Amino acid sequence: MAEPKENLQMEKIVSLCKRRGFVFQSSEIYGGLNGFWDYGPLGAELKRNVKELWWHAMTRQRDDVAGLEATIIMSPKIWEASGHVATFSDPMVDCKTCKGRFRADQTDEIACPQKPSKCVNECHGEKTEARAFNLMFQTYVGPTATAADIAYLRPETAQAIFAQFKNVLETSRQKVPFGIAQVGKAFRNEVTPRNFTFRSREFEQMELEFFIKPDEVIEAIHGSVAQSAADLLSADATHKSTSADKMSAAHSEPQPNWGWQAWHQYWVAERVRFYEGIGLSRETLGFHHQTPAELAHYARACTDILFKFPFSKKDEHGNVKGDELEGIAARSDFDLSQHQRFSGKPMGVFDDELRAAWAKLSKEKSDDLWKRYYENRKNYLTKSARPDETPEQISKQATEDANGLAKGQYIPHVIEPSAGVDRLILALIANAYSEATKTDDKGKSETIYVMKFHPRVAPVKAGIFPLLKNKPELLKKAQEVRDLLRPWMNVYYDEAGSIGKRYARQDEAGTPFCVTIDFDTLGEKPELLDTVTIRYRDDGKQERVKISELLDFLLSKIR
Amino acid sequence: MAEPKENLQMEKIVSLCKRRGFVFQSSEIYGGLNGFWDYGPLGAELKRNVKELWWHAMTRQRDDVAGLEATIIMSPKIWEASGHVATFSDPMVDCKTCKGRFRADQTDEIACPQKPSKCVNECHGEKTEARAFNLMFQTYVGPTATAADIAYLRPETAQAIFAQFKNVLETSRQKVPFGIAQVGKAFRNEVTPRNFTFRSREFEQMELEFFIKPDEVIEAIHGSVAQSAADLLSADATHKSTSADKMSAAHSEPQPNWGWQAWHQYWVAERVRFYEGIGLSRETLGFHHQTPAELAHYARACTDILFKFPFSKKDEHGNVKGDELEGIAARSDFDLSQHQRFSGKPMGVFDDELRAAWAKLSKEKSDDLWKRYYENRKNYLTKSARPDETPEQISKQATEDANGLAKGQYIPHVIEPSAGVDRLILALIANAYSEATKTDDKGKSETIYVMKFHPRVAPVKAGIFPLLKNKPELLKKAQEVRDLLRPWMNVYYDEAGSIGKRYARQDEAGTPFCVTIDFDTLGEKPELLDTVTIRYRDDGKQERVKISELLDFLLSKIR
Repeated sequence: MAEPKENLQMEKIVSLCKRRGFVFQSSEIYGGLNGFWDYGPLGAELKRNVKELWWHAMTRQRDDVAGLEATIIMSPKIWEASGHVATFSDPMVDCKTCKGRFRADQTDEIACPQKPSKCVNECHGEKTEARAFNLMFQTYVGPTATAADIAYLRPETAQAIFAQFKNVLETSRQKVPFGIAQVGKAFRNEVTPRNFTFRSREFEQMELEFFIKPDEVIEAIHGSVAQSAADLLSADATHKSTSADKMSAAHSEPQPNWGWQAWHQYWVAERVRFYEGIGLSRETLGFHHQTPAELAHYARACTDILFKFPFSKKDEHGNVKGDELEGIAARSDFDLSQHQRFSGKPMGVFDDELRAAWAKLSKEKSDDLWKRYYENRKNYLTKSARPDETPEQISKQATEDANGLAKGQYIPHVIEPSAGVDRLILALIANAYSEATKTDDKGKSETIYVMKFHPRVAPVKAGIFPLLKNKPELLKKAQEVRDLLRPWMNVYYDEAGSIGKRYARQDEAGTPFCVTIDFDTLGEKPELLDTVTIRYRDDGKQERVKISELLDFLLSKIR
Repeated sequence: MAEPKENLQMEKIVSLCKRRGFVFQSSEIYGGLNGFWDYGPLGAELKRNVKELWWHAMTRQRDDVAGLEATIIMSPKIWEASGHVATFSDPMVDCKTCKGRFRADQTDEIACPQKPSKCVNECHGEKTEARAFNLMFQTYVGPTATAADIAYLRPETAQAIFAQFKNVLETSRQKVPFGIAQVGKAFRNEVTPRNFTFRSREFEQMELEFFIKPDEVIEAIHGSVAQSAADLLSADATHKSTSADKMSAAHSEPQPNWGWQAWHQYWVAERVRFYEGIGLSRETLGFHHQTPAELAHYARACTDILFKFPFSKKDEHGNVKGDELEGIAARSDFDLSQHQRFSGKPMGVFDDELRAAWAKLSKEKSDDLWKRYYENRKNYLTKSARPDETPEQISKQATEDANGLAKGQYIPHVIEPSAGVDRLILALIANAYSEATKTDDKGKSETIYVMKFHPRVAPVKAGIFPLLKNKPELLKKAQEVRDLLRPWMNVYYDEAGSIGKRYARQDEAGTPFCVTIDFDTLGEKPELLDTVTIRYRDDGKQERVKISELLDFLLSKIR
């Protein structure tokens, strides 16, 4: 592991991850593979819980989002349309002395792979000019490996959503505004994977593309565009615009007259609420509002939700800002427009309400809206123009597009909340990690580790312990309790060792509740017959609960 | 789609899949990509349900299985150890006339890709000698694309489990016998993908590797090996050994003295029970017991569970046998042995019970067990020998391995139930598909489609309908019912169109229950206040249920 030695906290986390089976190095018995990580039994459960909660919040709990599960290998034309083939690259230099290849912007940081800490840092061998190194993994599909058979492992899940936009629209009975959600693996051939699982070459994304009406369409239908408090949030990165008040203001029921700013702010607030709901408090999060210079040419705003990782750097004021968990981008109509241009298939939608409203607009109003829509389309077409496209062709196309409004036609805009699963898992692990010193009766001290996961994401929800291993009645009763809970949650049955040892094991696994079946459960104290002790991970407190009420009690805590 | 025209049933299924958003062609707007399929909103839910049920049955419902989620790209050495680099290939020929490349065993079936239905079928152009074409997708990891950077997309999920066996064993507190389960994507560059999603290039697997003690170890500890009725099941493919009786016999609680045959039969029975539990009745399934000639050299038995797909061929007796959903293989200790040889890392386990038992064996008994274990090891080492290994070296290694028994050491054997998710989804869709002719009041007939999914796998569990769209009280009440159910199951709220139309839509989606909120719900008939009508998909019957009992009622049906 390439963690800097001084980052003790990260080292401890990495060590616990391996020791307790959260994360292993991929292919470890063969020396590992740089930038690839496996999830062990506890990590796999944690990850499943997080993905399930995201899917639940994004699709099942809403009427306005449909799900999709697309392939990792898609037509290479998708990546031409998205711009990834041309521009998804890092500048690389080769060292003529050691023959190593380095990122041009990192030659001072990175040691020579051939002769560690030689070459770049010491001999400063002559470098080639920087060349673009595409970050997409490439392969060939089919039995012949010709240029026509090249395909890529998707570097993001988003493009599949755009490519299938029309199919989903036509089969799901959704109407704009609505979203398409997808969870899945993506791959980037990072030159320097780092920070444990934070930047790896194979990772998983949870992406929503939420399609909305362009502001001109909203204005044509509703007379004006509601911007909510969005202008405050998306303006710039310097002022304090992320207070709980403004977040809450944005968390209201979506309204038909919302413009892109209101929708953007809504989704930022929704996503923050999600993170809070799985145990990442507001203080552990940070925000970065991309500046105009940082934004892609087509993007109107992008708010990154950050988490303060142990490896996160301090800014110029000594504050830890955090590293990105998720970006929420307002991407205009760039994506659908690009796929329309490259596939020749129409990506616009027809909206009867727009057509009816347009017919009733004053000449002045419709001219104004027409012009603004036209300018936006011309702007997009100009910035993404192919070398062979002339300004005349572009004006003609923009005119056609704007003329569509009167017929009820437009290309939807999109708000994209795009989250990385693996970095969220790492954030949850870092957030949960805590140490305490425990001194036993004989004065012997030891460090104990408690993973304080929110019960919703905890890999194991409850440990089930018969007090003693050698009493069949206790085992039988404990197994009954296990079988009662198991259909509803992941439990861990453990009969080995002292109760204290079993608690400690579950503390390290992050299990929020331990249930002990003892002689009182069997009726030694008649008034306690069929009750169990629940012990809470975070404060060690215990209480007595009836078995008949146990399932509902635990369900109320973990859901 | 390359379905034969005569297979009308498959055509109808493919058509419904696209029309209702179960399955789309990947990258359809760019002409598609042969062998790649996306799951639309309903398909994605169906697939999630199936994977969740498998994971639940295999890990959470058991104490003896741990989960794993490994990367798709792993060290290439894993595929050297597993034999995939050397032998995972199809024999291919090139046609010197048309330059097309074909599977050597399919030159009569497959049309020429350059000139369809030319060349192979007609001109019978001269072919090259058959050459091995490896089915693994290849890529390069890291910035330089040298031979040392070659990596593969995993062609199966199993090998990651073997490579991480020791890590999982050490972190999960499991002891042999125990299993490791994994669900995930795998990739095979099939020369001729076919039968819709049945044989595709990107697919998903659900694999369990269940590690057991070798029979010699069982015998040393328990005096004898319980074989259950396994000898009957695994013997050969001809006799009728798959009756419900024998399956049930195998479904008993695992016992410590079970040998590999009992475990193999147990897992066949478990897996059949799983398929029955999600709606695939015994009549829709078939079995194939691989013959000694079909088995891999290391395998002791393999039972394939088949499903009778619409495209499944008839055998020589005119019976449809079916195509493979899952193979349950007894793979001996081949996999762990191979990784031990290639990685140099010990893959054996230490078993105190064995060591203690061995010390008490008679000389005659321990010699006998030693010899049998030695012969098995020698047999494996001989068959998998590298060119540079001599018989003497092999004997020496086998002797060392057998000497380990007295120290309590052995390499576990494995039973592998390996299922394909996509083909199971296709089986569920084919099984659910049904047509009926409906005649309306005016005598007009139309074909209606009902997808009779088992409620456990159905993408949508309940449709929620307010009787009329223009009555705010009905909408409000219906939304309350929706919000009551939604945290627990996927529901579809629909207020558009007649109730009959809404039923028909949900019938096509395979929704088992529809809940209608009407004026009686609001108390028009006081005795029906706060009750709703539940309508059953499969027989159209309706009954009245209290809202307060609705959640429990539905949960009892869908779990």
